[in-house]
Amino acid sequence: MSFHEQPHRRFNPLKNEWILVSPHRAKRPWQGQQDIQDTAVRPAHDPDCYLCAGNERAGGLRNPDYKNVFIFDNDFAALMPSAGCRVEKDKPLFRAALANGACRVMCFSPDHGKTLPEMPVADIRTVVDSWAAQEKELSAVHAYVQIFENKGAMMGCSSPHPHGQIWATDYVPAEPEREDAAQAEWFEQHQSAMLLTYAAQEADDGARTVAQNDHWIAVVPYWASWPYEILLLPRFAVQHMHALAPEERDALADIMKAVTIAYDNLFQTSFPYSMGWHGAPSATPDAPHWQLHAHFYPPLLRSASVRKFMVGYEMLAEAQRDLTPEAAAAHLRATDKIHYRSQR
Amino acid sequence: MSFHEQPHRRFNPLKNEWILVSPHRAKRPWQGQQDIQDTAVRPAHDPDCYLCAGNERAGGLRNPDYKNVFIFDNDFAALMPSAGCRVEKDKPLFRAALANGACRVMCFSPDHGKTLPEMPVADIRTVVDSWAAQEKELSAVHAYVQIFENKGAMMGCSSPHPHGQIWATDYVPAEPEREDAAQAEWFEQHQSAMLLTYAAQEADDGARTVAQNDHWIAVVPYWASWPYEILLLPRFAVQHMHALAPEERDALADIMKAVTIAYDNLFQTSFPYSMGWHGAPSATPDAPHWQLHAHFYPPLLRSASVRKFMVGYEMLAEAQRDLTPEAAAAHLRATDKIHYRSQR
Ligand SMILES: O=P(O)(O)O[C@H]1O[C@H](CO)[C@@H](O)[C@H](O)[C@H]1O
Ligand SMILES: O=P(O)(O)O[C@H]1O[C@H](CO)[C@@H](O)[C@H](O)[C@H]1O
Repeated sequence: MSFHEQPHRRFNPLKNEWILVSPHRAKRPWQGQQDIQDTAVRPAHDPDCYLCAGNERAGGLRNPDYKNVFIFDNDFAALMPSAGCRVEKDKPLFRAALANGACRVMCFSPDHGKTLPEMPVADIRTVVDSWAAQEKELSAVHAYVQIFENKGAMMGCSSPHPHGQIWATDYVPAEPEREDAAQAEWFEQHQSAMLLTYAAQEADDGARTVAQNDHWIAVVPYWASWPYEILLLPRFAVQHMHALAPEERDALADIMKAVTIAYDNLFQTSFPYSMGWHGAPSATPDAPHWQLHAHFYPPLLRSASVRKFMVGYEMLAEAQRDLTPEAAAAHLRATDKIHYRSQR
Repeated sequence: MSFHEQPHRRFNPLKNEWILVSPHRAKRPWQGQQDIQDTAVRPAHDPDCYLCAGNERAGGLRNPDYKNVFIFDNDFAALMPSAGCRVEKDKPLFRAALANGACRVMCFSPDHGKTLPEMPVADIRTVVDSWAAQEKELSAVHAYVQIFENKGAMMGCSSPHPHGQIWATDYVPAEPEREDAAQAEWFEQHQSAMLLTYAAQEADDGARTVAQNDHWIAVVPYWASWPYEILLLPRFAVQHMHALAPEERDALADIMKAVTIAYDNLFQTSFPYSMGWHGAPSATPDAPHWQLHAHFYPPLLRSASVRKFMVGYEMLAEAQRDLTPEAAAAHLRATDKIHYRSQR
């Protein structure tokens, strides 16, 4: 039996953590929960959608008649500006801190019925520009800006209208903090940016590549924990979204479309995922150890209705996957380049 | 506004990680996915269940006519004994290692229709003894033994028959490794076991206590990330399950019953969760920094059908919760001490 066919661990250098790979396990029969797959065809405007143009939101505000991207403050924000109250006195095992910040919602398009893979590249480019502008504006006053999208009911998304969120905080949250430390350590040891080296090595190898162009590469990372996880990397040094040049933004819109089409085509469904951007913290404009990148974390494993459960062992011991990253990348590469719905 | 009512962060000293608490957010309306609640009444024997006594399992083996606990090797094990093949040569960003071990399934009872909260305390005590015996046997030949239970379809459990799993590995997995480091650092600084100090301070305070007896205390920890997360702690120094004295095992069976009844009664449903035991790695029999403990990670948030989604922000930035641990503990404390099904 080859090494890749038997249980092994791989190391995630960005999180500084091992994960367990059990390739043979993909063959076991599944008798557990089936999720509802999303193959609904939706109208361009839904009078009951609180994100559609012209409609009223919870809280009574009315959306404008927007034409491409529309951004507003989250009506149920998890973060708020400082209320000015003081932290209780800490005991060593009871430590707390204030958490101030802002939460925004960003509609990608007024078209209720189309998610990113079905949007024209020019409209995805507008989304990229808006992300960059938001990051620039919010990083001027906040320590970290987290741009993300929850897609699909399976990912806790409460509306099918194409949209994402932006949460900005007066501190650097746990995950980017961890990535910051790992990238800084690598830089100190190698005098190079970890993810720039990694992007070049993945482009050379090709086994885990899902899509690429002159500026970007999308891979199922060597250490992926979700079955069809993707890491989207620039092939040039860049720390922040707002630092991207026009041609790099065009190329980003292209590869975002390619990646999300591969996802939808894999199981012929609107593919659920959480995705988001990690850039350098605001306070470090000159951070050569950092590389801007996006993570896609999709839950599906075998079909449009059978997901991977990250439960028991994964929560208590370590992440575990049931097919190799190389196999996942091959499945995604083998999908059609045209979205399945526009082929009919 | 008091500190506890506004967004703040709390520090998890076991994982060395912050989490975000947004108490006001519990009030927002929910328009997203509803899960199916489990209120089914099941027969004591189900001819189609592959875990029931006398039935055939996938793979063709037949279960014996067992009377209390029954343990067998997982038919689709994520870990296997060494196949003797060699690791590929590592590059710094492409690190892999062999992962050898064993996976077992443990039926808690032949009664298909009753989970832990409905089992007699004496039968839960038998489960505790079996856990201890398994841990002793497997830790003699493996570096770490992870005992856990996935309960409910929502937690990827493929059978409602009361059962748990045991995965033993020739290495210490990521999570216990992290807890080992955090506890060792605390011990070095304070010359005391972190979780023994913590158990005493929680018992003094009471605000987060769900249940307690002379030997154990169950709390929603100060840094809980899941809404109704529970940390079950011994109030005496102990590193391994097999080191528990008879009266400590009796008291453990009692508090396990109390905790799982509180869970089921909270939303009058068979409460889903993943739970598991963290003990010291096998190689460190004398590890005064370690305290044996169990984590309960339940997904439900507002009702038997509305769960917390740990998605976008949580996966990319940091865990976020929508009610304070103190509020969660108060809800659990307020539940009836008798299981709702046995009151009818
Ligand atoms: O109980 P099963 O069917 O082996 O599997 C379940 O628990 C495992 C260990 O937590 C997970 O890896 C699986 O995703 C989950 O479905
Ligand atoms: O999009 P919503 O409804 O604000 O909420 C969703 O995303 C948030 C950020 O990832 C999560 O905290 C919620 O659990 C999830 O339901």
